[in-house]
Amino acid sequence: MTGSAALDLIRPEVDRSLRMFVDRQRPLFANPELAPLLTTAEDFLTGGKRLRPAFCYWGWRAAGGSDDPALFYAAASLELLQASALIHDDVMDASDVRRGMPSVHRRFEQMHKEAGWHGSAAQFGEGTAVLLGNLLLIWAGEMWRGSGLPPEALAAARPVHEHMLTELMCGQYLDLREQAEAQSTLDGALRVALYKSGKYSVEQPLRLGLLLAARAEREWIDTLCLQYGQQVGIAFQLRDDILGVFGDPAETGKPAGDDLREGKRTILIARALAKASPAQEQTVRGLLGDPGLDADGVERLRTVIEETGALAACEEMIKRYLDDALLALDQAPIEEAARTALASLAVAATSRRT
Amino acid sequence: MTGSAALDLIRPEVDRSLRMFVDRQRPLFANPELAPLLTTAEDFLTGGKRLRPAFCYWGWRAAGGSDDPALFYAAASLELLQASALIHDDVMDASDVRRGMPSVHRRFEQMHKEAGWHGSAAQFGEGTAVLLGNLLLIWAGEMWRGSGLPPEALAAARPVHEHMLTELMCGQYLDLREQAEAQSTLDGALRVALYKSGKYSVEQPLRLGLLLAARAEREWIDTLCLQYGQQVGIAFQLRDDILGVFGDPAETGKPAGDDLREGKRTILIARALAKASPAQEQTVRGLLGDPGLDADGVERLRTVIEETGALAACEEMIKRYLDDALLALDQAPIEEAARTALASLAVAATSRRT
Repeated sequence: MTGSAALDLIRPEVDRSLRMFVDRQRPLFANPELAPLLTTAEDFLTGGKRLRPAFCYWGWRAAGGSDDPALFYAAASLELLQASALIHDDVMDASDVRRGMPSVHRRFEQMHKEAGWHGSAAQFGEGTAVLLGNLLLIWAGEMWRGSGLPPEALAAARPVHEHMLTELMCGQYLDLREQAEAQSTLDGALRVALYKSGKYSVEQPLRLGLLLAARAEREWIDTLCLQYGQQVGIAFQLRDDILGVFGDPAETGKPAGDDLREGKRTILIARALAKASPAQEQTVRGLLGDPGLDADGVERLRTVIEETGALAACEEMIKRYLDDALLALDQAPIEEAARTALASLAVAATSRRT
Repeated sequence: MTGSAALDLIRPEVDRSLRMFVDRQRPLFANPELAPLLTTAEDFLTGGKRLRPAFCYWGWRAAGGSDDPALFYAAASLELLQASALIHDDVMDASDVRRGMPSVHRRFEQMHKEAGWHGSAAQFGEGTAVLLGNLLLIWAGEMWRGSGLPPEALAAARPVHEHMLTELMCGQYLDLREQAEAQSTLDGALRVALYKSGKYSVEQPLRLGLLLAARAEREWIDTLCLQYGQQVGIAFQLRDDILGVFGDPAETGKPAGDDLREGKRTILIARALAKASPAQEQTVRGLLGDPGLDADGVERLRTVIEETGALAACEEMIKRYLDDALLALDQAPIEEAARTALASLAVAATSRRT
């Protein structure tokens, strides 16, 4: 099975579940003044690779669960959570573009301008994006709990679900701090990669699926989540960091070099600084985080990242994390179909094209 | 019983519950980099009048519930929700002060400045406030569900709890729109008062308490929530609007005339504009929402609001809503101690000093 097949298999079910949930909310948004909130949420939700629901689904299958609309519904709620996080992220980073379209706060800023309303259009856009992110965060919990899965299954997964949410906010805060402190240590960057994305993108969705099916913590579940989930999660973040610098905008949905402009303190940057000559270090310190960074500046930073060997080192790290993860997967006492799917998902999540 | 007594009675229990919940989260925040999030949350939570928990508690008592630590714990979660809403509100309104202290985004902006960190201190402050508001929103749900109340009680209240959260975000969005559209119609202002505060501050907390004890919707519950809860809620918002213009900063915890500076489109403003002479209208249109509005400007707006009769009309509305609410309360088939407490709470929530 290819990674794409492991994702494609569940996409229609996840999409259907999201539509069902949104349809339940629709009556409240019949008021034309509230309608733009729902329309924007729906637009935003059509994007996304359904990666987190896929890890949840294949965790469920790994622990012996069979196809069940209730599981798809619960898993799909993770897309609402991700949408919330991205909408707030874009406000915090003042990003203009997401998934190839204007970011949510820019959309509402534009609406304000076109209507010729009073006050600051930018402030209206940001305020609305904060509220819409909140709404999706609330809905993520409501959808998770409203899946129709048995209460015992939900109860077994609840501590992990709650912990995941708190961890996500803490991880995002650490990310803001790393950017502000601008120290770019490898330890700091690794910790952010683990908290902000590693756990929340792979390990915890997988763990939720496993717990929903197994209905209790087991030693092998924890081992698989740590040795496969966490490793794939960090490798996924490393790939994301590389794409944020070298990625094709058509593929990433973000302008080229956006992470450089925002001054993200990634593992890639930490490794580049660790090996930089004084001149190269000066280039990085001078250009990284400059909101007006142009194509030439992006190119100069890319050159430093390549010439210091940071790019190659990160590719090597991804390969090592992935190999370790696949080895752990081989040894886990899980269903064979799930093993095959999780192996291909791991490759897809950490390869150039996902 | 005075309103203050009805609040004082539950304050120690609510405070204890909040401390218990925060203590459960503390281990994760042992990391000194994360500690400021928890410290700020704790500081913020010491403020607040515990009004929403009080309506929930007295709703519970009204439907026959007896004192129970689990109920106090669930009711206290409403303070986390309120804290989340206020922290986000201050970001959206760019407010400097809350509860007599710097607003959360200003606190973290200051921390950034003092540490001499890189990048925009303001952006760091706002980003952190968004994340801390999210954390408190997440915790509000976690605390509500983790109260230890029987599953049947929580299940009976769940649809109302979920609806309340969605309604709150929609209400806040309508508020942003009213400010932006700047039309100041009475209908628009009333709708915002109902959605943003009326329902969420009084009606729904009361309904939650009633449902937790009664464990099922009953006709009299709905009647009481609409005829007492909604009326008190709107009167509470009207009082808040008046305090936002005429209140003593020592009492409101906000600078004098802050609502005028932010351009809030309240019922008070709608009534003033409806009766304003062309010169008075010009004063309002020219000064309302001016971020640099000084003491003289505040005074000029106050004068228009008084001279148009808007202040007196709003006081009259509060009285009428309150009278109707107390009449409905008299007719409800509820416990006598709760009737007395709810009557005094209604007065306290809508009088000059609360």
